[in-house]
Amino acid sequence: MQRIEKIIEQIGPLDKEAMKQARERQDFLTKPKGSLGVLEDVSIRVAGITGSPMPEIVDKVIVTMAGDHGTAKRGVSAFPQEVTAQMVYNFIRGGAGINVLARHAGARVVVVDMGVAADLEPGPALVNKKVNHGTKDMTEGPAMTREEAVRSITAGIEVVEEEMEKGADIIGTGDMGIGNTTPSSAITAVFTGRDVRAVTGRGTGVDDAALENKIAVIEESLKVNRPERSDPIDVLAKVGGFEIGGLAGVILAGAKNRVPVVIDGFISGAAALIATGLAPQSKDYLIAAHRSVESGHTIMLEHIGLTPLMDLNMRLGEGTGAALGISITEAAVKILREMATFADAGVSESE
Amino acid sequence: MQRIEKIIEQIGPLDKEAMKQARERQDFLTKPKGSLGVLEDVSIRVAGITGSPMPEIVDKVIVTMAGDHGTAKRGVSAFPQEVTAQMVYNFIRGGAGINVLARHAGARVVVVDMGVAADLEPGPALVNKKVNHGTKDMTEGPAMTREEAVRSITAGIEVVEEEMEKGADIIGTGDMGIGNTTPSSAITAVFTGRDVRAVTGRGTGVDDAALENKIAVIEESLKVNRPERSDPIDVLAKVGGFEIGGLAGVILAGAKNRVPVVIDGFISGAAALIATGLAPQSKDYLIAAHRSVESGHTIMLEHIGLTPLMDLNMRLGEGTGAALGISITEAAVKILREMATFADAGVSESE
Repeated sequence: MQRIEKIIEQIGPLDKEAMKQARERQDFLTKPKGSLGVLEDVSIRVAGITGSPMPEIVDKVIVTMAGDHGTAKRGVSAFPQEVTAQMVYNFIRGGAGINVLARHAGARVVVVDMGVAADLEPGPALVNKKVNHGTKDMTEGPAMTREEAVRSITAGIEVVEEEMEKGADIIGTGDMGIGNTTPSSAITAVFTGRDVRAVTGRGTGVDDAALENKIAVIEESLKVNRPERSDPIDVLAKVGGFEIGGLAGVILAGAKNRVPVVIDGFISGAAALIATGLAPQSKDYLIAAHRSVESGHTIMLEHIGLTPLMDLNMRLGEGTGAALGISITEAAVKILREMATFADAGVSESE
Repeated sequence: MQRIEKIIEQIGPLDKEAMKQARERQDFLTKPKGSLGVLEDVSIRVAGITGSPMPEIVDKVIVTMAGDHGTAKRGVSAFPQEVTAQMVYNFIRGGAGINVLARHAGARVVVVDMGVAADLEPGPALVNKKVNHGTKDMTEGPAMTREEAVRSITAGIEVVEEEMEKGADIIGTGDMGIGNTTPSSAITAVFTGRDVRAVTGRGTGVDDAALENKIAVIEESLKVNRPERSDPIDVLAKVGGFEIGGLAGVILAGAKNRVPVVIDGFISGAAALIATGLAPQSKDYLIAAHRSVESGHTIMLEHIGLTPLMDLNMRLGEGTGAALGISITEAAVKILREMATFADAGVSESE
């Protein structure tokens, strides 16, 4: 916990002077003022995050964290639990959606075993931070111990610190874990105070009966555990997941290291609820890539205070939305660095 | 006109068999069915456009067409007319927004003089299709002759035919022309039947008084010219622009050559109204990149029957939105080509 507290202390405010300079530069570039809309806003925020009025994004990293869930056996997902491990191998071989979209965005994918139920084959392409072999069934008690919750966040911090040494300029978050929309909905219900039903969707695509069961499972978990909203570690321990805790650590360490953290969909959003619960100022370092189909996603983003860049009707996870969001963020930053000014280009300004 | 009619005759329907195969393949890929949302839809449409169930996008081209407008002297823009020519030089030197975003998307920019009021320096980076030195003031009569309208569309067709020989796999549209939201609003009012006020926005950023003047200019143009909705060439001639006609030709030729045409914002949308007015089946070849801030854009897209990929509060034109849209379209197609199937990856399917 000391490591987490130390990271939180080191998350400072955005650099207002860099933002001011970036905003001024945007107004000198050869375009009507404000005409690149969200791209201008993003470039200014990245200036504030990095402390540079002309930031550069070269090394792009997507951290995709995998974990299993005790509640998966309660019929909350359309897929069997073994798929988590199978998909981790798919990530390593480069055949999954995140691999395709990360290559398209020119980003590296760092695959992390945070708590897959199976023993995965070790290899250079898999970061082993396994906290346990899946969480416990949270309808019967806490998903994990408080110590495991702390360890999962710390593991996420460690992963980012390692990537910072390699030169990461931007970090995307991604997840894999059969059943993990269930804890994510539970976390959303706790932090936003909304009804479980309002924040629970179909995940991988369950039918009406399975959706009702999923809502009942989440309600039961909250009743049994009574997570305390003012104590995000308690929420994570009681109704969370190892990959969710890991991603919360990724967000905190990204903010501490002053790199933009592009968050993916619903599971990354649950991690952001934990992270911003622990360190409200970390919100300023987050860029929400897209609005997920998952019904609770809009509610959680509004609670955090984020507006997503895109709405492409996606709900895959893995960091697929983050990959597209990284590309948009890079485009925004390139506008600031590469466009000619009115003076440079000899173009007349508005009258 | 014969050339245009011949192109229109050759625009066939989408390839239903290729679309069926692409849809089936999407369902075998290692992800919950439908979970990549719009990316899946786009990949299936590109299959239908190209006639290939596994299409590939390598050579990406953005055609940015420039033209001047007689009504510019009526105070409809925040910028002086000389900026059109100045920006063409900025495009050629690579310093404009479109250059930055096209480089980001890995696309070439083809800059075309369709009717800039100045005599531009010839050079290998500028395609000269100048129909005239700017249109006439459409409040006093037709913006151009019917023959010029036909010539502008034909020029757009010629540009695409030249790019197809170089191997273009996808075409984006872009525009430059001080004052060109004015004819675009006029065209939108004609085709949609909506009030001028409802389809007229601030363009480069005019104030309230200038907006009222702009609306009056458009109303006057429509009253003086009485463009005939059932005759798109008449509409183009009376209240259009050379770059708008050129882009209509780009759309028709793209559709005839079975490549996806990614349309940018409001001016490209006006070109799409002309093109789909002439050839309704060309609509299926269009991908709307983004929703522009310009108030009439949503109305025109609904009229054509297109849903934009993104909404990034942009209003620059030049093809900047198209560049981002091309990147999303390429990502969609890569999903289809590069993702592993459940069988390939040894991943269990949903229960």
